[in-house]
Amino acid sequence: MRIGLDMMGGDFAPQEAVKGVKLFLDTVATATNAHLVLIGDEQAIAPLIADAQIAPSNFTIVHAPQVIGMHEHPTKALKEKTQSSIATGFHLLQNGKIDAFISAGNTGAMMVGTFYSIKAIEGVQRPTISTPLPWVNGSFGLLLDVGINSDCKPENLVQFAILGSLYAKHIMKRENPTVALLNIGEEEGKGNLLAQATYPLLKEHPQLNFVGNIEGRHILNGKADVIVCEGFTGNVVLKLAESLHEIAVKRNIKDEYLDRFNFETYGGTPVLGVSQPVIIGHGISEAVAFKNMIILAQQMIETRLLEKIRESFKSK
Amino acid sequence: MRIGLDMMGGDFAPQEAVKGVKLFLDTVATATNAHLVLIGDEQAIAPLIADAQIAPSNFTIVHAPQVIGMHEHPTKALKEKTQSSIATGFHLLQNGKIDAFISAGNTGAMMVGTFYSIKAIEGVQRPTISTPLPWVNGSFGLLLDVGINSDCKPENLVQFAILGSLYAKHIMKRENPTVALLNIGEEEGKGNLLAQATYPLLKEHPQLNFVGNIEGRHILNGKADVIVCEGFTGNVVLKLAESLHEIAVKRNIKDEYLDRFNFETYGGTPVLGVSQPVIIGHGISEAVAFKNMIILAQQMIETRLLEKIRESFKSK
Repeated sequence: MRIGLDMMGGDFAPQEAVKGVKLFLDTVATATNAHLVLIGDEQAIAPLIADAQIAPSNFTIVHAPQVIGMHEHPTKALKEKTQSSIATGFHLLQNGKIDAFISAGNTGAMMVGTFYSIKAIEGVQRPTISTPLPWVNGSFGLLLDVGINSDCKPENLVQFAILGSLYAKHIMKRENPTVALLNIGEEEGKGNLLAQATYPLLKEHPQLNFVGNIEGRHILNGKADVIVCEGFTGNVVLKLAESLHEIAVKRNIKDEYLDRFNFETYGGTPVLGVSQPVIIGHGISEAVAFKNMIILAQQMIETRLLEKIRESFKSK
Repeated sequence: MRIGLDMMGGDFAPQEAVKGVKLFLDTVATATNAHLVLIGDEQAIAPLIADAQIAPSNFTIVHAPQVIGMHEHPTKALKEKTQSSIATGFHLLQNGKIDAFISAGNTGAMMVGTFYSIKAIEGVQRPTISTPLPWVNGSFGLLLDVGINSDCKPENLVQFAILGSLYAKHIMKRENPTVALLNIGEEEGKGNLLAQATYPLLKEHPQLNFVGNIEGRHILNGKADVIVCEGFTGNVVLKLAESLHEIAVKRNIKDEYLDRFNFETYGGTPVLGVSQPVIIGHGISEAVAFKNMIILAQQMIETRLLEKIRESFKSK
């Protein structure tokens, strides 16, 4: 498998991207056949790779002289900077030269690139992005959508539930993953119009192990492997949760659980529902995040997650 | 002023309600002319009041032999238990026998009672409930709506902003309080359809000091005195925030800031936009919460908050 990595994306690129590659190769790659396609400005990355003493058999550099900045307008930048690492990555993915594409660069450009270059899987109305949510008991759950679908119909939430369940099963290794609907009350019939209309669809869906509504107070309690909501509430929850780690750091609170709200360490989020693996990282990604994103890409390929999604949506 | 208090409401009533009354009278009341109207089963509360050595001049007991349980159906219970403390409280409020009504009892019954007994202020489409959100810097902000208006129109959010601003000015003592719109991006034009349509209305409103969008990551950072959103997202945020205190306790994290997520200590939320002061407390309210709710009722009466709201909505 060939995993494409944008070496120029993120606030600490290319240094941290190179360190992440090294970390991956040193700690994980011996057990795999992953070949890394490192996309970026060769003059910037080649010396760093040489310094890191990365064996040439493990990677190929694809030269991409341009960089899309973190604050550039996504559509405009992608159109104008055809030689950028992000544009090049999507080009390689489209043409089957890589099997997955990872970037911690301009999130908007990554979204635009995904939706323009890579098709949604047949039957998927709205691809989605998710976040892991750490549980107090040590494990973690998946919340989706967290921001790209801020207005949703009930059917969209049902599809997020299916996508999330498949991800939980194959990547998070949960047997028969439980799914809950984020809501403002526990009983059926509670909530806004969207939640009220979504509940019976989730309850009756044969592919889902639906366990009912979940309130904000139980998001971190491990009551469900997968929690679905529209992307507005999901994004607010994600960013509020992220701020907990900052608060812990600022207040010098040493707590292993609060450390787990450092989302940077999780790597990135895959765009679920599109026909090829695309993983979007945080702008602040450091080496561990890059390593974890490469591992995630590898897992998505190895578990054939996208084929499972394809089958699932075909059978509907 | 006569402040009515449901002595039977809440998980720890009537003991904690009596303790709260005592605490209020011992620490606050000498500076005020508040007379407390204690509503509940006289046989249950009179001995506790005697034990607490509360001076008879400070209170009047209104006997209400029935209690609405925390899990009873609100409408049914209110209809059938006309001699309950909640039904009696609203009856007294309607007839001008008390100037404010406080209860930590069945929240649904309090909401139903409020909307059936007490009218909305003219011009207010949707009365609202709020929560204080502790800031890392020590102070706190106000988030509304937090659950009774889960589907909103842009005009509703504008009204929440006005109600919140008046509350922030008169009760929280903020000069020209800042108002932000909870959103999933900082720039105008971001967000779901509701947020997109609400932004320009807030921006152009002459009564509001609107400072733009606020993302989940900045909710706890003190960027705005008042944050508005529909009650679905607001309720999820409130309950997630509440769970932080539980997590801190469970993990034995000693931190003054996380302690402030113990919402019980804040007392209760007023129903803003109705024509008389109604304050709804947490079911788990203890003495401090009862004391704080009595103080809040007193402040609402003293500052003539409801008249300010009336004037504000009249001038529109």
